[in-house]
Amino acid sequence: MDFTVESATSAVVGSFDATPDPRLREVMQVLTRHLHDFVRETAPTVGEWNTAIEFLTEVGRWCSDTRQEFILLSDVLGVSMLVETINGHEGGTESTVLGPFHMTESPRRELGDSIDLIGGTRVCVVTGTVRTTSGEPLADAGVDVWQCTEDGFYDVQQPDRQPAGNGRGLFRTDAEGRYWFRTVVPSSYPIPTDGPVGTLLGATDRHPYRPAHVHLIVSAEGYEEVTTHAFVAGSAYVDSDAVFAVKKNLMVEFVESTDAGAAAEYGVEAPFVHAEFDIVLHERS
Amino acid sequence: MDFTVESATSAVVGSFDATPDPRLREVMQVLTRHLHDFVRETAPTVGEWNTAIEFLTEVGRWCSDTRQEFILLSDVLGVSMLVETINGHEGGTESTVLGPFHMTESPRRELGDSIDLIGGTRVCVVTGTVRTTSGEPLADAGVDVWQCTEDGFYDVQQPDRQPAGNGRGLFRTDAEGRYWFRTVVPSSYPIPTDGPVGTLLGATDRHPYRPAHVHLIVSAEGYEEVTTHAFVAGSAYVDSDAVFAVKKNLMVEFVESTDAGAAAEYGVEAPFVHAEFDIVLHERS
Repeated sequence: MDFTVESATSAVVGSFDATPDPRLREVMQVLTRHLHDFVRETAPTVGEWNTAIEFLTEVGRWCSDTRQEFILLSDVLGVSMLVETINGHEGGTESTVLGPFHMTESPRRELGDSIDLIGGTRVCVVTGTVRTTSGEPLADAGVDVWQCTEDGFYDVQQPDRQPAGNGRGLFRTDAEGRYWFRTVVPSSYPIPTDGPVGTLLGATDRHPYRPAHVHLIVSAEGYEEVTTHAFVAGSAYVDSDAVFAVKKNLMVEFVESTDAGAAAEYGVEAPFVHAEFDIVLHERS
Repeated sequence: MDFTVESATSAVVGSFDATPDPRLREVMQVLTRHLHDFVRETAPTVGEWNTAIEFLTEVGRWCSDTRQEFILLSDVLGVSMLVETINGHEGGTESTVLGPFHMTESPRRELGDSIDLIGGTRVCVVTGTVRTTSGEPLADAGVDVWQCTEDGFYDVQQPDRQPAGNGRGLFRTDAEGRYWFRTVVPSSYPIPTDGPVGTLLGATDRHPYRPAHVHLIVSAEGYEEVTTHAFVAGSAYVDSDAVFAVKKNLMVEFVESTDAGAAAEYGVEAPFVHAEFDIVLHERS
């Protein structure tokens, strides 16, 4: 009957023995073991544990329809990225974190449309082809993109200054698997630091910046969906991303182009910035 | 630069290297290792991880001035009890969980006062002496008590049916270290199950009940404060407390007494229930 530092874990693990769903049972029992190991190793005082409870409560208080502080916490602890990496598919484009800003549905747009609704200065064309691991183009694949402005803000962060859907678009590839759209070159930016996760970063002397990137979720019937980024090669913070999401294979050159023919084709004026990011989807197993 | 399942932990642990406060640095680095081990061992899908994020968000949503769902979560995972046990003091009265209901200040009361403001049926007198580990009585020690009604509810759970402070009292021991007060015999009760922690208990086929108990926090100048319970010996659920807080040494016999002299002394009518719970405080180190 007695609960001791030694017997604690088997008592709690045992309490989950009757869980009908075997996966839930496994997760709760493994969680209990690691959580108790963490507590035994750090031996928090009651005051320290209360501080942890208050921190989690505060994280909860900051969550709203347009803010997900728990995802942010998972991000800065590298957990989101670890989960993405564990679920990656050999041979397909590497995945990276979803991040906290994919909270509104991207508006459906036509190939070639601009997702920049506020008129940025460094006009950019992003192009690419979605293919299978054997190189076949995938027609009618969904390419959901979202990114920040040249100033480093997403639409949901500036409801007064950006129309909803700015920097967002849901495209479908053409018969040759191609997608293309107009935008602006995104900026590096700090993750939101006005909440408890920002306080944690400050207290641990970590900067909150992410290197510049365009988010993508690419999907096609019968293939594994991939959540990834196109990172702007050479951007600040590529070696110290606050959420650990950088992978070498996701670095994309955003190149200044003076090709007037290409500019006309994409409906922009030369010079413009061109980024090409091809995607490989893995067949669903 | 690449983040892999193998390199993930050292990257995140390293990000905390510059934390100025050594204790915070230690806690964050140990947390990172155990959290990543948990993720690697369970290998959650992205959907499962989202479910975990939504669960924590929901726990946060249920927190208010009168509800602490994160403490409840910590309780049902045995973590609150583990922290209390780690911080126990050899030779002193054993500690147990604070629980989620010590959220309002207990009203200051005089020795012998009743904390039952609504007129329960099984009138009970709780008495005891607070002593040092060498047996010396401790005068003017603070004895903060709180308990549920005979129906199993705390005042904060029934603001319409119980006056604030019902079942609560802050007493000070007399010159001989004694405390005594009138109350009713508390009931076993379920922890709140209308929130996400209740949903978790349901999904894992765990019952939400706690054996009957009176909460106490006992403190004296120069001594370690103890947060503990007096459990009603023989109560239902003493072998399967939902929050794992039972310790053999905290079992107290609540005895039916027909002693008319004692009844008069305590200002109750015979027969009444008498419980004696002595407390030993450890000197502050």
